Amino acid sequence: MYIDHNQNLSEVLKDYKKAVEASLDQLLPPENVMPNKLHEAMRYSVFAGGKRIRPIITLLCCKLFSGNLEDALPVASAFELIHTYSLVHDDLPAMDNDDYRRGKLTNHKVYGEAVAILAGDALLTKAFEILSRVPKTTSIKADVANLIIETAAGAAGNLSMIGGQVMDIMTEEIAGREKNISELILFEIHKRKTAALIAAAAKAGAFVAKASIKDVNLIEDFGVALGLLFQMSDDLLDHTATREELGKTPGKDGAKNKLTFLSLFGPETARRKIDEFQQKTLLLLEPFGDRANLLKKLTSYIATRSN
Amino acid sequence: MYIDHNQNLSEVLKDYKKAVEASLDQLLPPENVMPNKLHEAMRYSVFAGGKRIRPIITLLCCKLFSGNLEDALPVASAFELIHTYSLVHDDLPAMDNDDYRRGKLTNHKVYGEAVAILAGDALLTKAFEILSRVPKTTSIKADVANLIIETAAGAAGNLSMIGGQVMDIMTEEIAGREKNISELILFEIHKRKTAALIAAAAKAGAFVAKASIKDVNLIEDFGVALGLLFQMSDDLLDHTATREELGKTPGKDGAKNKLTFLSLFGPETARRKIDEFQQKTLLLLEPFGDRANLLKKLTSYIATRSN
Repeated sequence: MYIDHNQNLSEVLKDYKKAVEASLDQLLPPENVMPNKLHEAMRYSVFAGGKRIRPIITLLCCKLFSGNLEDALPVASAFELIHTYSLVHDDLPAMDNDDYRRGKLTNHKVYGEAVAILAGDALLTKAFEILSRVPKTTSIKADVANLIIETAAGAAGNLSMIGGQVMDIMTEEIAGREKNISELILFEIHKRKTAALIAAAAKAGAFVAKASIKDVNLIEDFGVALGLLFQMSDDLLDHTATREELGKTPGKDGAKNKLTFLSLFGPETARRKIDEFQQKTLLLLEPFGDRANLLKKLTSYIATRSN
Repeated sequence: MYIDHNQNLSEVLKDYKKAVEASLDQLLPPENVMPNKLHEAMRYSVFAGGKRIRPIITLLCCKLFSGNLEDALPVASAFELIHTYSLVHDDLPAMDNDDYRRGKLTNHKVYGEAVAILAGDALLTKAFEILSRVPKTTSIKADVANLIIETAAGAAGNLSMIGGQVMDIMTEEIAGREKNISELILFEIHKRKTAALIAAAAKAGAFVAKASIKDVNLIEDFGVALGLLFQMSDDLLDHTATREELGKTPGKDGAKNKLTFLSLFGPETARRKIDEFQQKTLLLLEPFGDRANLLKKLTSYIATRSN
């Protein structure tokens, strides 16, 4: 990850993913430590695949402001743990009741519901433990670590990710209402459930690099837009992708008559809206010029991805 | 809470409880903010009663070292939120499957499993958000806030509280083995599941008061002992208390043939062991002399409590 990759996004994604996974492996408790089953369950979901988009965004935003990528790694990893915990809990029978995730059985299908709930809890807790320790393990100062923890907790909390999930599971209640209201609500759910954590991961990278408040705010706006774009393309993929590409049962959102970007607009309009939103997102990177080339490429990759 | 209560424990408990509950009310999101149902669920369990033992321990340990109790209040409250989240998740059908807690319906019986899981997640996340913000809301320095977060996350995490809960739900597997092994395992479960968070709450109070490393370590040892004592008397109460005193179905541990302090020793031996352990716990406060009078009284109160 120390080579300068200014042009080739796929090389960067590959290298960063590898660095993040090595960091996660080092930060997570070994499986042979008691209680083994909990530690196995934590590692099972963290290493069940995934593109590591959130930690990669942290690293790219740190790199944008010439920050130290070694310092950013544990911070980036903490965001992946928060993301993974949210997936483990979302998949539970009481929530989305999913049997597969990324082509593998979901955590509770392998370890049972009790351990899956606790493994999710432990991943969230571990994320904050890691962030609290960065002043000991990196050159990040204590006040910056606190800002990062506040940002992560805010993005994962009751007004953001968890709040969005609650709104998501309650969408049936509003499904019958008119389209304009539904679009507003859907936007609000996506912003909370997906975009807030992606924006926080981006901000955290800027914090590590000691970016100015102005730059942090610009990066936050970009992160929110990128997060919305990610969720839009995710909804579309649920409709168009095969089971193999998706790693989970495709079309499940539609089958549950869930309010999604796709159920609201249909595939053609959804595709057009994604393309338009991609352009808006790219505009938010203009203040950074060529330095943001990799983030621009990541934006296009997210808008057009097929898995 | 600003009067000097050196002698009367019950007055102090009453005043501190009131201060903690006012702080919790101020720190938690209002119910009329979206998503209302989540915020109602969070507040429901936090304000469903409880003796506020953990935050009171934080305040008493802060007071022991002449720290600022106003500064300690949000820290103390964060520990109560972590404790409450653990109760909400422990009560779930996939775990202990309890319908009542503190004389009221459990969270999932009122709000459903999905919201209960998410309300627990949100309480845990809110605790870390509160702790990350104390450098902004109190005179606590950023490095001390980091230490407190690390301590809380360690005590709540995979090697402590969550690890203890996993071991607890797996005790059936070892129930048939011989008594000596069971006693060791039970001690280990209690240490992780209960004592670690109580010790962390105690340590956090000492951190707020800028106690020396030596004093912090002494307080940690006391906190672990107090936590074990608390769990021992809790197990005994499950056997001897009435439903009204307990606020939940008594004898449920026994009915489930669960490994508890009581099932292992029977009520008479358990009572004797509690009395012995109370003396050991009190000895750990000797280095602080009369300054620890309130903590000594709290120790005796915990050892002999009837609810």
